[in-house]
Amino acid sequence: MDSKELILQRSNEAKEIFLPNLSADPVIFGFDQNQLKVLLLKMSYRHQWFLPGGYVKKDEDLDDAVVRILKERAGVNAVSYLEEFGVFGKKNRSEDYFEDFDETLFYKQRFITIGYYALYNPSKIDLTVDEYSESCEWIYLSELSHIEMAMDHKEIVEKALLTLREKISIKPIGLNLLPEKFTLSELRKLYEAILGKDLNRGNFYRKIKKLGILEKLDEQRKGGAHKSPDLYSFNKEIYNKALENGLISW
Amino acid sequence: MDSKELILQRSNEAKEIFLPNLSADPVIFGFDQNQLKVLLLKMSYRHQWFLPGGYVKKDEDLDDAVVRILKERAGVNAVSYLEEFGVFGKKNRSEDYFEDFDETLFYKQRFITIGYYALYNPSKIDLTVDEYSESCEWIYLSELSHIEMAMDHKEIVEKALLTLREKISIKPIGLNLLPEKFTLSELRKLYEAILGKDLNRGNFYRKIKKLGILEKLDEQRKGGAHKSPDLYSFNKEIYNKALENGLISW
Repeated sequence: MDSKELILQRSNEAKEIFLPNLSADPVIFGFDQNQLKVLLLKMSYRHQWFLPGGYVKKDEDLDDAVVRILKERAGVNAVSYLEEFGVFGKKNRSEDYFEDFDETLFYKQRFITIGYYALYNPSKIDLTVDEYSESCEWIYLSELSHIEMAMDHKEIVEKALLTLREKISIKPIGLNLLPEKFTLSELRKLYEAILGKDLNRGNFYRKIKKLGILEKLDEQRKGGAHKSPDLYSFNKEIYNKALENGLISW
Repeated sequence: MDSKELILQRSNEAKEIFLPNLSADPVIFGFDQNQLKVLLLKMSYRHQWFLPGGYVKKDEDLDDAVVRILKERAGVNAVSYLEEFGVFGKKNRSEDYFEDFDETLFYKQRFITIGYYALYNPSKIDLTVDEYSESCEWIYLSELSHIEMAMDHKEIVEKALLTLREKISIKPIGLNLLPEKFTLSELRKLYEAILGKDLNRGNFYRKIKKLGILEKLDEQRKGGAHKSPDLYSFNKEIYNKALENGLISW
């Protein structure tokens, strides 16, 4: 079956199963080689990149739908919590995409899509490729300007990144992204990747230590050319408390 | 026409005009007498309190819909920007409400609702009552536990308040809520109302002055029993910059 036949066949099933006009698009960020990545699918039809999104079943809670969609489309089991960050509701946001089909196609109707994001360590996820896609990959954010993304999906990724930037002013970050033990330099590079700018080393170390979420281990990272730097881990109790209550209080 | 007849008649029109399964609920906060209020409607049918919500037209951008809904349901013209803060998508969130009607009623289908919030000075808004409602009022948050709210609308207000609490750690607040000239004590009471707790005067004054968003005027509030306190206003340029970039930087 070629990609157009598959879309036509699934369209008829979709009308029975899913709510109309509404979709969900998860933006999964990973951190690797000191850079942020995002999880994308390349659809076989028209070969453009998509977020691993999908639709909500008529009898399914919305939160359950997002977790199911991510599993079905990319094989991602590990992400159990995603945070809603924005709704994309321009009336013409997807109207031109399925140009080879007529108006009865389920996928060609107007969709208001709900954006969710999560942060994850790419090494902990085994990706799979679903029947609509020719690949499922982690793409560096720095590569996004060089690839063709469908509809407004690039704008959705950008809004997710802006939300993440706001969040690191009020919440701790890093627990699912860094290895168990890390250096202050590795943590700083995560913040730099999210903020999209270089940070002053001294300022960053002073501020991050003041938050109280770090534990200095009696261990150093060995093997580099330079002086072996100290290793740290997160104090999970304080980290989780800060996740709940925020970092800054009035 | 009684309230049930009206609902039946409008239901048939609604099916033609609006997207199914999707609604929007604006949570408009006001500040008055040192307390937060929220704008609510009391529906004539079943006499329960609702957010001034509504539906999205088939050919209307989502952002335009929210502004139109607020105007149609409460006469609110003044609010031009609302911020999305959450999507409420439990499959059974509204199923029991229209108990006197059968399944063909537009309003009785499953709705996933999108929550928006805004802050406004109640004295600047002339409220009107729409055809479905017997009243449209500002209700103090402290009164919410004493009134009957429909469906999950109380939960939606609570989530909006939590979002607002998070936001005041990263964004300035007060420009649309306080009079042009205000005392530090009035500003502190706004923060206390949002945070739901008392703040230490000295700490608050030191932190808020450090943000640089205030301008001390050469004027005092006269007429109180105590020493006349200094008046302040917001430096709009710095305030708007902080709105855009956030208060705290790494």
